[in-house]
Amino acid sequence: MTRTTLKSGLVAAALLAALPVIESAPVKAQPIDDDALIKYASSFFSPIPTEPPEIEGNPLTPEKIELGKMLFFEPRLSASQILSCNSCHNLAMGGDDNQETSIGHGWQAGPRNSPTVFNAVFNVAQFWDGRAADLKEQAKGPIQASVEMNNDPERVIATLRSMPEYVELFKRAFPDDKDPISFDNVTRAIEAFEATLITPNAPFDRYLQGDKDALTEQQKRGLQTFINAGCVACHYGVNLGGQQYFPFGVVERPGAEILPRDDKGRFEVTKTATDEYVFRAVPLRNVALTPPYFHSGKVWDLKQAVAIMGVAQLGRELSDSEIDDIVAFLWSLNGEKPRVELPQLPPRTQETPLPLVDTLPQAQQTASIKR
Amino acid sequence: MTRTTLKSGLVAAALLAALPVIESAPVKAQPIDDDALIKYASSFFSPIPTEPPEIEGNPLTPEKIELGKMLFFEPRLSASQILSCNSCHNLAMGGDDNQETSIGHGWQAGPRNSPTVFNAVFNVAQFWDGRAADLKEQAKGPIQASVEMNNDPERVIATLRSMPEYVELFKRAFPDDKDPISFDNVTRAIEAFEATLITPNAPFDRYLQGDKDALTEQQKRGLQTFINAGCVACHYGVNLGGQQYFPFGVVERPGAEILPRDDKGRFEVTKTATDEYVFRAVPLRNVALTPPYFHSGKVWDLKQAVAIMGVAQLGRELSDSEIDDIVAFLWSLNGEKPRVELPQLPPRTQETPLPLVDTLPQAQQTASIKR
Repeated sequence: MTRTTLKSGLVAAALLAALPVIESAPVKAQPIDDDALIKYASSFFSPIPTEPPEIEGNPLTPEKIELGKMLFFEPRLSASQILSCNSCHNLAMGGDDNQETSIGHGWQAGPRNSPTVFNAVFNVAQFWDGRAADLKEQAKGPIQASVEMNNDPERVIATLRSMPEYVELFKRAFPDDKDPISFDNVTRAIEAFEATLITPNAPFDRYLQGDKDALTEQQKRGLQTFINAGCVACHYGVNLGGQQYFPFGVVERPGAEILPRDDKGRFEVTKTATDEYVFRAVPLRNVALTPPYFHSGKVWDLKQAVAIMGVAQLGRELSDSEIDDIVAFLWSLNGEKPRVELPQLPPRTQETPLPLVDTLPQAQQTASIKR
Repeated sequence: MTRTTLKSGLVAAALLAALPVIESAPVKAQPIDDDALIKYASSFFSPIPTEPPEIEGNPLTPEKIELGKMLFFEPRLSASQILSCNSCHNLAMGGDDNQETSIGHGWQAGPRNSPTVFNAVFNVAQFWDGRAADLKEQAKGPIQASVEMNNDPERVIATLRSMPEYVELFKRAFPDDKDPISFDNVTRAIEAFEATLITPNAPFDRYLQGDKDALTEQQKRGLQTFINAGCVACHYGVNLGGQQYFPFGVVERPGAEILPRDDKGRFEVTKTATDEYVFRAVPLRNVALTPPYFHSGKVWDLKQAVAIMGVAQLGRELSDSEIDDIVAFLWSLNGEKPRVELPQLPPRTQETPLPLVDTLPQAQQTASIKR
């Protein structure tokens, strides 16, 4: 499913890039011909499936998914035993934290805006710079990052091994493993749970599937503009993004207040000069729920974000009505969020490592607080 | 229900205190006479009811409970928009955070250990010093405390009013109010949800209700010892505690490493000399799930906590086997936790106040982190 989508999306994008006059695309005319627009849109996009995709090398089983859910909500994966995956990828919100950049261990601000975990399984790679090939590899990052969970694999394993209930649950989730509690298996279970965090049946998906009333007239105009103005060149596929890497500033690099010059994006991964300020195109599913925007998290208003994209990536100032239409369309990308029952985490034992909270000395604390 | 339990508990405690020789209580003999023990225990304790209790002046409605659940998980009640009630009263764990003292705004450590929210509705008053009469009043504290959520009522109201979904939900939860979004109603809704956070059907409750196999022999011995050694003088009623105030150190005041001398407990509330180092007796429901122990959170081992209580409150060193039996009994107080589906919080709008995170300057951050 994912692969097909990706491939057809790539072909569509290449096709679009090859078109000399995007503005003259056939669906521009009023009134909107739904059949034509649905057909045209379906060459770029596909609906979120209603079932989780298969993960190569990590078969989804109910036992693994349930364990992954526990680990997703498990603050004892962090050194402080305060922060869990859900702290920054809040499933009660848009799968993120609505923060400029996430706040982690010691109240440190991370370097980049936290992306949503919803539908992340459909992205070609994880993180803003794509440095993790999949969700399994991704999960290893925040657990160890000193500005996030600040833990290390040894303490994670010691923590989980100290609780008999986890020992049993890992055995059940990884029945063929001699030593089921491993850091790899921790992230395999988290990946399995995260693969279930998909949001199907968005109005846009229902429209793609033929329900002509699923979008408002304004949203349909927005969809047309989104395609015809060229947004679709980067934001295509099942996730409307998340498939390829592009410079932030294809045409014009935004100011440092939005694109801080010390974060060179994918260059840090590839060390290739052409990858300076290159990022993975943001997946736009549920984007209306996940302000603030861009890797820097500097823009809170979706309209402003769209306007900035127009100038930076398309080299033109979108009109107010075009922006309004696109934003209305983006709201149609909010899908049905999974119902998640809070897991019950096992009680700690005397063998469980104590939290390493690293609080500041009192004087420093007081000085740092405004009120 | 609560009131009756409280009254009979008080009478039982008074009765017990009046008994000159506690050790000679009739159920001490082996083998255990279950009928007699159940009858005797029932004069001190009562089971957690299976339905939430009624709250005077705050009728529980499904609309109010559902809104309260959203607010309980709502990080935007905090100034940083990172911390929610659930951060320190984690429903995936024992209704607390398993921290010495909670970590709040700016990674500040709070002054006292976070009590469990489970069954808190049955306590005579809230906080370690009982300074809040009920859960409604309690909820006003952490939202405003600078070391916790660091917010103020005006910003809370502005935040909730900025989201049309909350405006509608408050109307439904408080249909007779002219101005439903008020700080009082925020805490009324939270109280209504918290009243549902009860954990019935613990093995001990099933035993009280006549299921003689619900406790192990060791747990029954532990129950006998708990009563006969005098623990029950403070820890009685439906919550095995939470009903009355007692000095920490009825007989012998613990060392400053466990009872820090600058926290004078209820004295801060009443300014009465006899209330120095007086605290509300800890409710013992689910106590095995909520280390570390005491208001200072200095003791991680439940056995050690029981031993300290023996010396401090009863004036005697409990034997190892007595301690083991009591701890086994305390594990029988773990009830069935409520199943909680994560709420879906409404998206912010352009009118929603921005988070006030107050991160430290980078240099200070780095200095404060060990690795």
